[in-house]
This record gives sequence, structure tokens and C-alpha cells, in this order.
Amino acid sequence: MKITNPKVAIVGCTGVVGTEMLNVLKERNFPYAEIRLLASANSAGELYEFDDQELIVEELNDNSFEQVDIALFATSAELSAKYVPIAQKAGAISIDNSSYFRMDPNVPLVVPEVNPHAIKSTDRIIANPNCSTIQLVPVLKALEAAVGIKRVVVSTYQAVSGAGKAAMEELWQQTVGILNQKEVAPEAFLHQIAFNCIPQIDVFQDDGYTKEETKVINESRKILELPDLAITCTAVRVPVFNSHAESVNVELKQDLSMEALIDKLKSIPGVKVFSDPSEYPLQINVSGSDDIFVGRIRRDSSVPFGYNLWIVADNLKKGAALNAVQIAELFVK
Amino acid sequence: MKITNPKVAIVGCTGVVGTEMLNVLKERNFPYAEIRLLASANSAGELYEFDDQELIVEELNDNSFEQVDIALFATSAELSAKYVPIAQKAGAISIDNSSYFRMDPNVPLVVPEVNPHAIKSTDRIIANPNCSTIQLVPVLKALEAAVGIKRVVVSTYQAVSGAGKAAMEELWQQTVGILNQKEVAPEAFLHQIAFNCIPQIDVFQDDGYTKEETKVINESRKILELPDLAITCTAVRVPVFNSHAESVNVELKQDLSMEALIDKLKSIPGVKVFSDPSEYPLQINVSGSDDIFVGRIRRDSSVPFGYNLWIVADNLKKGAALNAVQIAELFVK
Repeated sequence: MKITNPKVAIVGCTGVVGTEMLNVLKERNFPYAEIRLLASANSAGELYEFDDQELIVEELNDNSFEQVDIALFATSAELSAKYVPIAQKAGAISIDNSSYFRMDPNVPLVVPEVNPHAIKSTDRIIANPNCSTIQLVPVLKALEAAVGIKRVVVSTYQAVSGAGKAAMEELWQQTVGILNQKEVAPEAFLHQIAFNCIPQIDVFQDDGYTKEETKVINESRKILELPDLAITCTAVRVPVFNSHAESVNVELKQDLSMEALIDKLKSIPGVKVFSDPSEYPLQINVSGSDDIFVGRIRRDSSVPFGYNLWIVADNLKKGAALNAVQIAELFVK
Repeated sequence: MKITNPKVAIVGCTGVVGTEMLNVLKERNFPYAEIRLLASANSAGELYEFDDQELIVEELNDNSFEQVDIALFATSAELSAKYVPIAQKAGAISIDNSSYFRMDPNVPLVVPEVNPHAIKSTDRIIANPNCSTIQLVPVLKALEAAVGIKRVVVSTYQAVSGAGKAAMEELWQQTVGILNQKEVAPEAFLHQIAFNCIPQIDVFQDDGYTKEETKVINESRKILELPDLAITCTAVRVPVFNSHAESVNVELKQDLSMEALIDKLKSIPGVKVFSDPSEYPLQINVSGSDDIFVGRIRRDSSVPFGYNLWIVADNLKKGAALNAVQIAELFVK
């Protein structure tokens, strides 16, 4: 049952992803009856322009979801754990950008170009995948459908915006500090991020992988419905403000010509392909785009059917806010 | 036949690698009778302190190598192509940091901890490998010796110092520009490097790989004496001033326990291992160190005997100047 002109709430509207959700609703002319902005008490009363209105941020509380049809959560796992069930009880469909529900077998984890079919008509909570996963799975889906995937090795080059506003501010201030020979101690990150790469995103698990790396592995398997997909990941934070890049090595099960591979990638909605090997997507250029960009496509002769790819997307847009709004659109007339 | 107190020339002494060669000779108390500094006419007359002397840069010309025993070349492939044979004719041993002679089957390509045996007593030209290769091969050698390597997938995070002084200055000035909302157009790089990653180092070959990537592949095979080693590489420039990092996925031929692998790595001279998974080498900390640092060591369960590693080294020291001086030490009493 699709909703006409839903009442939409953005929960965590003042963060980088929440703000981007509001932008994306605007850009896509998302049909709505009302937009409600929710955040912590600290931000209550702040004003945001939307269309010709001024929206006032309200404090998030147990009554926030009355008459809300769709709640877009751009909150921490802790806040989502608490408020998604409250939204559900109030009758809202929740689209949650946190990691809390992603691996719950009862919650679909969705990239609309890949697995919209995962949403059953009774589902009221939909999880939005991790940014690094979202830009990867449309490409993997196309290759799996073409000839099957044997194994994937991913190394990421992730922007600081994935860690939020304070992290972006820290890259800026720390850089200013270094240029002026003043030390700015790390707070948002564990180590200096200015002019440095940090091979740790989120906390470590017992197996030596970080949570971020585990998300890429487990979420890809769930979205692609390939529970045994052979995939490994090294996730690295780089001193770039926005957009994640990924060096992706894919071993296929059978041969696929370069031309056929490029055709397959071009056929994915929302994927743009650089087929000229001397051109490639750059994080600074991709920021602000809706699409996932694939370049540096070349055969890897170290295995029979190998390819190397360089995949870049705006982690706040397709990697977060846009994907969430695209999920919301699946529920709207 | 080893030389006592050689006369040493540094060719290209004013570049980042040449300057570092002079530092390394000092740090290691390299025995010498004389140090001669050679560079282009532009730099002739510049002064460098060394021990208690002031060394004057001389213009490089056809007579520069008279009475020189060891010539350390920190020059472009073009200059090395021209002057290494001249040095050879004058009776000097040339240790060349350029790519020009590296793949010549008659020229040994040497990392002293890995293949000092490649130098025959008659060799008068020794090639110094590419920076990204040098930090990789000692680790691969140990794993090959232990149980054999099936395949290697490398993604690099390379500092701008690898592209020289102008590149370091460009990262600095472009960053200052962005912080002050002034555009600084790329010159040393093809694209903006400040707050951006560039997945292209050096020019493209017909197969879609860059020269840098091809160097890592071919030079590793030559140094390890494994002409068919299955290895692929994606080389990426990151906005970091110094030290290269590499995300390295290794598939072994047989099982090797984590403990045994760590022991093997610890046994390599010049390699330092972070065995606590929550600690890892960072480019900013490794800069200035002689060693190659390996961290993030963890099993990769996407293949039977897989491991992921994070390898960092100072590309100007072990990746260039130090390795060259270590080669020179093989010729000295």
C-alpha cells in the first residue's frame, strides 16, 4: 500500500546525514504533506529553510512520531535502538541509517537499485546500509548476475564526512594548525587525520577486523543474498572531506570481456562508467553527485578472470541520505 | 673486492632523494674519502653541510666521475640513461634510483635484506627499486620462504614526496589555497591533490595499468626471483607529505598460523611488527624511520590461507635513499 503525500520526519536532522536528507527531499521534489525535523534538545528551535517554509527543529521525544508516515533516522545506533520501535508503535515506517537493525534477519537492508524486492508489504523498519557497502553492491550485483563472483578484495579510501560534522571540522582545524605550526590534538579521530591515513574506522572486533570492515563484508552478503560470498576488506580513513573511494579487486567465476563488463556496469541505474582508462572518478569531483562512479577498469592477470576497479560515490548522498530517500520513495505514490 | 673509504658522488643531490642520501650517509657514518655533490647548472655553487665540511654542489658533466668509486644516482630515468654509462666508463660503481636500468636482465635490482646475492662481482650498475616495491618485497620474501605465496593484491596510499619537492610544495600551497578559498591549479599533479586521492601515479600503459603499478608487479617478480608471481596493484596518491602505506592481501600456498607469520615477519632485518591488532603504523609516525612497519595483521577468511596486512615505510629513506646507501655498503669494507 503506497502513501500519498506522507508526513515525513527526519530524526537527527542537524547532523551531516540529516541535513543532507533534507536537501535530497528538496532536490527530488519528494511529495509530502509535512516535514518534521527532530533532534536533541540542544538543537531544538533551530530553523531550516525548506521550499518556501521555515522549519523549526523539535526536540525528539516519545511523542514525536504521532501522525508521522515515514521517519528517516540519521541517528546513532543507540538512538535508533530506542526510537525506531517508538516510531513503529506510532504507525510510522522507519528508514534507519544506523547500523542497529542492519543485520537483523527480520529487517530488510536495501539498496533500491539492487534489492527492492527484499521489502515485504508488512515491513515497517528498513535499514539503510553502510556508506562503503552502498557504493559497492550495485557493481557486485551486476557482476554476479553476469558470470558469478568468486572473490572480492576491497581497500577503502574513506572521507572524514563519514564520521560526522566534528570530524570534518577536525580535519579543517588540524590542517590549519599544521600550516601554522600549532598542534591540534585528535578528538573525533584516534590519531592525526590531517596529512595522514588512519587504517582504523570504528572499533576492533575479536578477529582483528574493524566494525567498518565487518559491515562491508556482512552487509554485502545480506544485500546480495550471497551469505557465503568470499569478500574481505581493509577500511582506511583518508584526509579528504567528502566522498569515499574504493580499490576493488574482483575475481569472477567465468570470463567476461572488458566490453561486456563495461556494458553490464553501464546498465545499472545510478552507475556511471569511465570507460576511457586515462579518465577516472575523483572524490572532489564526485561530491554532490547522486551517482556511483566506476573507473580504472582493467583486467587483473594474477587470476584467470580478475578485474580491478576504482569506485567512488558521495558517502553522504548515495552512501546515506539519497539511498534512504530512495527507499522512502518505494513507499510513496 | 671491497673498497676502503670510497670517493662517493651523489648525482641529483638537491632533490628530495639526493638530499636524503646525504643525510643517510651521515646517519650511518658511511666511511668515505670524499663526498662529491653533483646537480644541474642551476644548483651549482649551492652549499651543503656534511660532518664538519661545507660541500659545494658541482655541475654534472661528462668529467664528473673521474676518481669516483661509488656514484649514487637520484636522477630521472633520462639523466641516469645518459650519465650512468659515463660513470661506468670512469670506473665508478653506479647505484641508480631511477627506473631506467631496473628491468635490464644484466642489472641486479636489489633490496639488501632480500637479494644481496643478485650482485655478481663484475656488476658495476645496481638498480635501486621503486619505493612501493622496496617496502613490499621483504615481507613477501619471508612469506614465500615460509609456505609459498599464491597471489598478492596491493592497494597503495602513496605520499606526495615520492613525486619530489615541487609536489610537496604543491600539496602545501594548494591546501593553504583551499583554506583561504583561493584556487591553486595543479602542476606537479594532474589533478588537485589537497583533500583528494588520485588513482594515477605516472603514465598509463596499454593494459590500463600505470607505470607505477607495473613497477610494483615487475620489480617484485625480479627481486623475489619469482617471474610468474601472481600479483596485482592499484597505486593511489594521497594527500600525505611523506611515507607510503600499502593495503596488502596475500594468499598463501599452505597454512601458516598467525603466530608463525608474526615470527617470520619479526625475523626480517629492518622490519618492525605491530602484533597487537589495535596498534598499527601511521605514515606521520613512520616518517624519518629506517624500518618497514607491518600492522593490521589478520586472517582473510575469503580464501583458505589468506592474510591482510598494512605496510608502511618512509619512501624517501627505506624506499629510496637508505636502500641505495645500504647497497653501497655492500661494496665497502
